Amino acid sequence: MKIYLAGPDVFLPDAVEIGRRKAAICARHGLIGLYPLDNIVDLAAANASLAIFKGNEAMMDAADAIIANLTPFRGPSADAGTVYELGYMAGRGKLCFAYSNDAALYPERVARSHAVTKAAAGHLIDDEGLTVEDFALPDNLMMIHCLDLHGATLVTPRQPPVDIWRDLASFEACVARAAARAATVRADSKTD
Amino acid sequence: MKIYLAGPDVFLPDAVEIGRRKAAICARHGLIGLYPLDNIVDLAAANASLAIFKGNEAMMDAADAIIANLTPFRGPSADAGTVYELGYMAGRGKLCFAYSNDAALYPERVARSHAVTKAAAGHLIDDEGLTVEDFALPDNLMMIHCLDLHGATLVTPRQPPVDIWRDLASFEACVARAAARAATVRADSKTD
Repeated sequence: MKIYLAGPDVFLPDAVEIGRRKAAICARHGLIGLYPLDNIVDLAAANASLAIFKGNEAMMDAADAIIANLTPFRGPSADAGTVYELGYMAGRGKLCFAYSNDAALYPERVARSHAVTKAAAGHLIDDEGLTVEDFALPDNLMMIHCLDLHGATLVTPRQPPVDIWRDLASFEACVARAAARAATVRADSKTD
Repeated sequence: MKIYLAGPDVFLPDAVEIGRRKAAICARHGLIGLYPLDNIVDLAAANASLAIFKGNEAMMDAADAIIANLTPFRGPSADAGTVYELGYMAGRGKLCFAYSNDAALYPERVARSHAVTKAAAGHLIDDEGLTVEDFALPDNLMMIHCLDLHGATLVTPRQPPVDIWRDLASFEACVARAAARAATVRADSKTD
């Protein structure tokens, strides 16, 4: 089973090293991790961003599953590029797994950067009057229920990790779930 | 042609009215707009969020195209639920259109809420040291190039609209593109 390793990890100063650690964890569980930075792109080229897109899309098409790092990124929700990739993989019918190293529920996350209050009708709103989703989920319901229906429930840590960008315990829990699923698929194909 | 109308519009206090206006614009161009709030969900039910997810996914599966409102939402990037849906529709091979009522480039958007500086290596970083994408694009490259390759380039207004949540000029430009594409598809099928 080939797994596309999606996340804002690629923006870290030690992005390459994180990718190596994630691929090594996949290998320990008998799986192959595909990491966006494995694609070689000339960042100085005029069409660098398009080359990155095409490389990532081809990598996703080659993968059987995705493990997305949905830790909040520059706001209450996950990194937009990662969320796009999760949607793409769900649309392609691939298995979807994800973790977030921040287990806080969405209204609590929004309240870190916005004033969250109750509207007259009783629901939560932000300072612009826009509804704040309040379903006891950590992020937008589309991503969370995508996981429930197209793979496995979001993994979050019981205790906040010391380094939310580099702690891979919840990532490894996703890999273990993917490996269990791969074993089921192999068992099924033997039965056929 | 049926178009899924994705966006944080559903969080506005006048969400139903915006949906009606969008559907009316689609109808004027000979298209059918499908709006998430057209699904009837009991918000007081225990499984309300799952019912919303299932309703939206069924609506996307029934649609031929998506028009996503990618105006920045609670941070530098578009609404996570909308981005998920854009990815899902791209993965399903549907036509992808989108607009943003904020034309600012991504580094400028990030600088509104984070300190953006130059790293020693020359690239832009935020206050946590994470790379800030700097490809002269308004948002994460995955969404922007998805549009280039799976539909049509992101539409942005020349002048910032007075009301970024309710100005539908850029939305209508997307509808016009979708209608032109639908006409091409009809002409092709007559030729066959």
